[in-house]
Amino acid sequence: MPTNAPLDRKLRMGLIGGGQGSFIGRVHATAAVLDNRAALVAGALSSDPAKAKASAPDYDIPADRAYTSYQEMAAAEAKRADKVDFVSVATPNHTHFEIAKTFAEAGFNVVCDKPLTFDLAQAEELLKVVEKTGVVFAVTHNYTGYPLVRQAREMIQAGELGEINAIRSNYIQGWLRTRLESSDQKQAKWRTDPKQSGAAGCFGDIGTHAYNLGRYMTGLLPTELSCSLKVFEEGRALDDYGTALIRYENGALGSVTASQISHGRENDLFIEIDGTKAALEWHQEEPNKLIVRKNGDPHKIYTRAGGPYIGTLSGSSSRLPSGHPEAFFEAFANVYTATYDAIVKRAGGQKVESVNTVYPNVYDGVEGMLFITKCVESSKANGGWLPFRHPKSRK
Amino acid sequence: MPTNAPLDRKLRMGLIGGGQGSFIGRVHATAAVLDNRAALVAGALSSDPAKAKASAPDYDIPADRAYTSYQEMAAAEAKRADKVDFVSVATPNHTHFEIAKTFAEAGFNVVCDKPLTFDLAQAEELLKVVEKTGVVFAVTHNYTGYPLVRQAREMIQAGELGEINAIRSNYIQGWLRTRLESSDQKQAKWRTDPKQSGAAGCFGDIGTHAYNLGRYMTGLLPTELSCSLKVFEEGRALDDYGTALIRYENGALGSVTASQISHGRENDLFIEIDGTKAALEWHQEEPNKLIVRKNGDPHKIYTRAGGPYIGTLSGSSSRLPSGHPEAFFEAFANVYTATYDAIVKRAGGQKVESVNTVYPNVYDGVEGMLFITKCVESSKANGGWLPFRHPKSRK
Amino acid sequence: MPTNAPLDRKLRMGLIGGGQGSFIGRVHATAAVLDNRAALVAGALSSDPAKAKASAPDYDIPADRAYTSYQEMAAAEAKRADKVDFVSVATPNHTHFEIAKTFAEAGFNVVCDKPLTFDLAQAEELLKVVEKTGVVFAVTHNYTGYPLVRQAREMIQAGELGEINAIRSNYIQGWLRTRLESSDQKQAKWRTDPKQSGAAGCFGDIGTHAYNLGRYMTGLLPTELSCSLKVFEEGRALDDYGTALIRYENGALGSVTASQISHGRENDLFIEIDGTKAALEWHQEEPNKLIVRKNGDPHKIYTRAGGPYIGTLSGSSSRLPSGHPEAFFEAFANVYTATYDAIVKRAGGQKVESVNTVYPNVYDGVEGMLFITKCVESSKANGGWLPFRHPKSRK
Amino acid sequence: MPTNAPLDRKLRMGLIGGGQGSFIGRVHATAAVLDNRAALVAGALSSDPAKAKASAPDYDIPADRAYTSYQEMAAAEAKRADKVDFVSVATPNHTHFEIAKTFAEAGFNVVCDKPLTFDLAQAEELLKVVEKTGVVFAVTHNYTGYPLVRQAREMIQAGELGEINAIRSNYIQGWLRTRLESSDQKQAKWRTDPKQSGAAGCFGDIGTHAYNLGRYMTGLLPTELSCSLKVFEEGRALDDYGTALIRYENGALGSVTASQISHGRENDLFIEIDGTKAALEWHQEEPNKLIVRKNGDPHKIYTRAGGPYIGTLSGSSSRLPSGHPEAFFEAFANVYTATYDAIVKRAGGQKVESVNTVYPNVYDGVEGMLFITKCVESSKANGGWLPFRHPKSRK
Repeated sequence: MPTNAPLDRKLRMGLIGGGQGSFIGRVHATAAVLDNRAALVAGALSSDPAKAKASAPDYDIPADRAYTSYQEMAAAEAKRADKVDFVSVATPNHTHFEIAKTFAEAGFNVVCDKPLTFDLAQAEELLKVVEKTGVVFAVTHNYTGYPLVRQAREMIQAGELGEINAIRSNYIQGWLRTRLESSDQKQAKWRTDPKQSGAAGCFGDIGTHAYNLGRYMTGLLPTELSCSLKVFEEGRALDDYGTALIRYENGALGSVTASQISHGRENDLFIEIDGTKAALEWHQEEPNKLIVRKNGDPHKIYTRAGGPYIGTLSGSSSRLPSGHPEAFFEAFANVYTATYDAIVKRAGGQKVESVNTVYPNVYDGVEGMLFITKCVESSKANGGWLPFRHPKSRK
Repeated sequence: MPTNAPLDRKLRMGLIGGGQGSFIGRVHATAAVLDNRAALVAGALSSDPAKAKASAPDYDIPADRAYTSYQEMAAAEAKRADKVDFVSVATPNHTHFEIAKTFAEAGFNVVCDKPLTFDLAQAEELLKVVEKTGVVFAVTHNYTGYPLVRQAREMIQAGELGEINAIRSNYIQGWLRTRLESSDQKQAKWRTDPKQSGAAGCFGDIGTHAYNLGRYMTGLLPTELSCSLKVFEEGRALDDYGTALIRYENGALGSVTASQISHGRENDLFIEIDGTKAALEWHQEEPNKLIVRKNGDPHKIYTRAGGPYIGTLSGSSSRLPSGHPEAFFEAFANVYTATYDAIVKRAGGQKVESVNTVYPNVYDGVEGMLFITKCVESSKANGGWLPFRHPKSRK
Repeated sequence: MPTNAPLDRKLRMGLIGGGQGSFIGRVHATAAVLDNRAALVAGALSSDPAKAKASAPDYDIPADRAYTSYQEMAAAEAKRADKVDFVSVATPNHTHFEIAKTFAEAGFNVVCDKPLTFDLAQAEELLKVVEKTGVVFAVTHNYTGYPLVRQAREMIQAGELGEINAIRSNYIQGWLRTRLESSDQKQAKWRTDPKQSGAAGCFGDIGTHAYNLGRYMTGLLPTELSCSLKVFEEGRALDDYGTALIRYENGALGSVTASQISHGRENDLFIEIDGTKAALEWHQEEPNKLIVRKNGDPHKIYTRAGGPYIGTLSGSSSRLPSGHPEAFFEAFANVYTATYDAIVKRAGGQKVESVNTVYPNVYDGVEGMLFITKCVESSKANGGWLPFRHPKSRK
Repeated sequence: MPTNAPLDRKLRMGLIGGGQGSFIGRVHATAAVLDNRAALVAGALSSDPAKAKASAPDYDIPADRAYTSYQEMAAAEAKRADKVDFVSVATPNHTHFEIAKTFAEAGFNVVCDKPLTFDLAQAEELLKVVEKTGVVFAVTHNYTGYPLVRQAREMIQAGELGEINAIRSNYIQGWLRTRLESSDQKQAKWRTDPKQSGAAGCFGDIGTHAYNLGRYMTGLLPTELSCSLKVFEEGRALDDYGTALIRYENGALGSVTASQISHGRENDLFIEIDGTKAALEWHQEEPNKLIVRKNGDPHKIYTRAGGPYIGTLSGSSSRLPSGHPEAFFEAFANVYTATYDAIVKRAGGQKVESVNTVYPNVYDGVEGMLFITKCVESSKANGGWLPFRHPKSRK
């Protein structure tokens, strides 16, 4: 069982968003406590005060810590001796910035949904705050939490694939095949609304995940980007399909294809990576398998916790023996676990790494915003190549 | 979010077993609280008193409810106003009976690992206690908790497969390919020891799951059984491989094949069911897919939460949208959820069903023990057919 | 290109059966000439003389060698200087014996469909003829022709799987889910008619293939057999479902399950073999993959012609590079190719092996008939174990 | 059995290329006669006269029709009463033009390997010859011959997918991961040599197939193209990786990704097509399955010859029942079969269609050359969009 030693207690979590009817808030709340290292003790669960109050019992949040606004919460918690150790921000995109900034400035660690902010300017400003305050800041690119995604990262870092030449990352969904946003479907509504979602639709929602996955696995630094976005559902305000090409510093070529209009495709994030020594392939919908190939050898299927060939990080990211499938919640929880390690370390007065962390961090968040921004810009410029590299991005 | 209404609080859980080094205890503890309908508040976590005490903090069990024996716990809890609503028994097989009986007699609801008891006589006796006291009694044939297993059950009950002719259920593992029990591997040690495991090894541990899965999906009542068990690892005291054939009342023929000696096979429980109108296939290692076939039609892959074709029970057994995979923990939690519904109902003074429940019940547990007993007996009689039907088994 | 050296010409093939409306005759004719080592030059294509004549042009058989009966053909061909080198028997089961015997006695090599004969007595008599005359005699257990089936055989013979403990062979179809034989469906009609098919239906048609596949891969010699056959379609005269268990000399346990009533299952022959050192799995419907597993290693997928790990026999059984799928026809042709090697050798005056050949031989055919006979007998005796071993079977 | 009625004989085939050591020549020879509608009777099998002669017996070509050059063959065959009906051109790319032009001008029908010619100018010139002479001209984009590729085409033409929005076509191989051309590997040598292969390497060899597959299935007419080609193996003269985006007239967006440097990938051509009503997916390495998806429905797997849902063209492109896999040779043969239908029609004096044929025709060949040309041009222009539409391309 993981512990929080030397910190001799569970971490105290605050939740922003997650009120009744929310989906992702519940996912955060479930994943964050899966390993019993944290307890949810406070929340500003809705921007509607009544709903904020009414939702608290669902999470066992006591009435006195069920705040009616994040501002109130930040102020009140700051004064408590048993203040929350971190807050999780599970609200629509356009509100991330104010919330995250408020808490970071008050010294709270933050776990924030992706995309990091509404636009790039906000992201840059938030980054400054985080750098200044030194808080632990995680962005829930949750797919990085899958044990075999981490296995891929370990293998690539160890050079098992050789030099990386190509990354093909795809995130294919079908749920926005119709104008679902015309109905009252809450998830569809805000995701297709430029005022809440930001400059991109499909590429902001899932294209960023696909890009991040390749970045996380390979550590390759990008240099340029070209993108073609499409709106296939007539009348929709934001892209629902697109392809970006990415050039990396080492000469590799990447592609990101994302779709929300592919009939019957559920949540099909998959990636293929070609190296000079070997290649690999992973599919989010079958997360317990990683395919590794090498010319002349049989194709190999690595399984989660499958044997001594599994790396340290991947191995420590599993809770169950191989063949007992783990899935979405556990991967989400793994992002939290890695974040907790950093929070505990910081609580002990140690300096924590903020780049190249096991959990996706604020720099990844900023890079994601840069990705979205450049994709939209390139697409408007008929797919012209644009410089794409944040000065602070690290391998 | 599911609630315990009209009961206006979380259920209080007690855990027997699960001390440091345990695997399945932690699974119970995690699954039982996944939906926040219960909290673990008391436990007798080990038969070793020091370990029992030391393990309590891992589960947030307060010291005063960290008992050093299940007897102590039963006595103490019985006196409390806030006594536990149920206990989960996650100890080796040979101890199930005494523990479960003790708590059931004291009026506590019980969630018990499978196989139900050490031998059939114990199972019959325990059944009497449960019938007399009317407690809710669940047996964690956890694979029944998978949403698509329940989908299969709903489809078959609704007649979508027609009359069932054949069930082929397989549970193939490889981890006992060597004499792992010669080392200090705790899981291997007790499972291959007749004094702790009972009359069967592989068939007690996993053969029962495979049999139960077909029973759960189809509801068919068996009449006769023939079995051939084998020990392939020299010197092992219990079977590590075998095949049973089952004749069902309606003329159907079933088979159960279980193995612990198949290299590289992890936890490969899979089942195929043939009906006069359609056939289906499900694999535990890819639990989010159910294959349904009908002559002349394309093969169909039903996915968890995949659309309106998903039945009520299956639908309510999902927490995430399709394509966001759920797995072992969630299935385990689903067994708890169904049990909670019954516990809440009983707490409200209502009579609860004890046969044909959504959760596997004490009758399923008894039938499992009968299965084991008859398999061993038939195998000793060179695979001769033996009557196989518990008088209280219901569809 | 394979040649027939030192024989400096193509082999001359005669075909019995295959008249208009036939399925398997056309398969023989196509497969036999795929590699251009043989030409079809004579035939008795139907028992109906007019149809026999009319069908000849479809196969480019000249009119003077389009015989109206196999007897006429055997007599006429025997007198020719350019007589056929072999005949392929592609007629219903109940006619195999007389035809094969007639040609073998006349010194012709024979390629005969399976099952070898109508009953065991015929098979034994035919065996004597073949032994006496020394003709090359192949039985088209065509699935043995798949390159990866041969790969499995090579690996097992080389000891890569260690001692074999278990064989699970399944052949699952659905096309006889209804009483298709009540219609004019020719394939269904004779296969379900005891007068044409023999003592078994499903087990004669496909159960034998499944049994033979395990025998071919492992070379294990059987000792005993137990079988349960079922008729699920009311009014059908022969079994359409069943399971047999087989005990092998070395202590291994095998199972053969065959079905013709599993909705939507097309031609799903698949096998799993467990050895002490490794295990493997192969599916006829995806014949270009062979899965090999070993505890602690990643699962390995061997592909046809996939690399240096492919054995000599398997490698020489491929015509195309890996990834360019080969399938049913090519496997069928491979059985012919191996038979041709023997025919050419015999034509050169050399003695040819008759047991343990690359192609399934007359002993395999006899063992197949013994399998059918014993399965029916055991099933009638309520699944009792019967001795199952032909005195002439060899590894 | 298909016949050539009203033409009362087999078609006479001539083969250019295919001498000893050739791969694709043998594939042509095998596929062309698979259904017994044609016989190979003449050839100019090598540009080396001695080899041309020596190779003839392998194909049963009589010595007097084993020509030492294609020019000789064209002249000699033109004078014969029993002249060949068509020639198959199976030589390296840079020789296609002269050969095909010579035969077409002499009035012979032609089956030509892809890419059609060495460069676009040749293709345009060849097109004029074909249009003038009216010969049947097929280009072996052999993957169009798979029954389920044709099923996809039929479904899309019938509107079952609705309006097509997106095509993602990929052709991933790994065999040129090293500088194989530095060794004596013949296949690698000419494919990576700009003098024999043309302006593109990977994109000429396989990118064209991937592009053509989407065109064949959807019939969408392209308008613009953007492409990024890469050389990952240092010192290689031609691209071994790349991605092209294609804009179609109806607003759809397509992508073609081709690789020869992806470790362990064999011949992985796969395609996904999104329509407003449904989507589909097909993989060449598992050609007997076609996945069809529609929001809210189970995923459907169509199988070759799998039932009444199979269309007319797809159904008539199968030789075996479902579950008896067909593969590469049969698909190749299907291209021939469709070509034969046209040749027979023309031989009967009827006018034959030359656009939108079941077999890929000369217009497809020209479009393929245009694709290659524009891909190279766009890539040199940093992926700028270029007009991409041949004036004679038809749906």
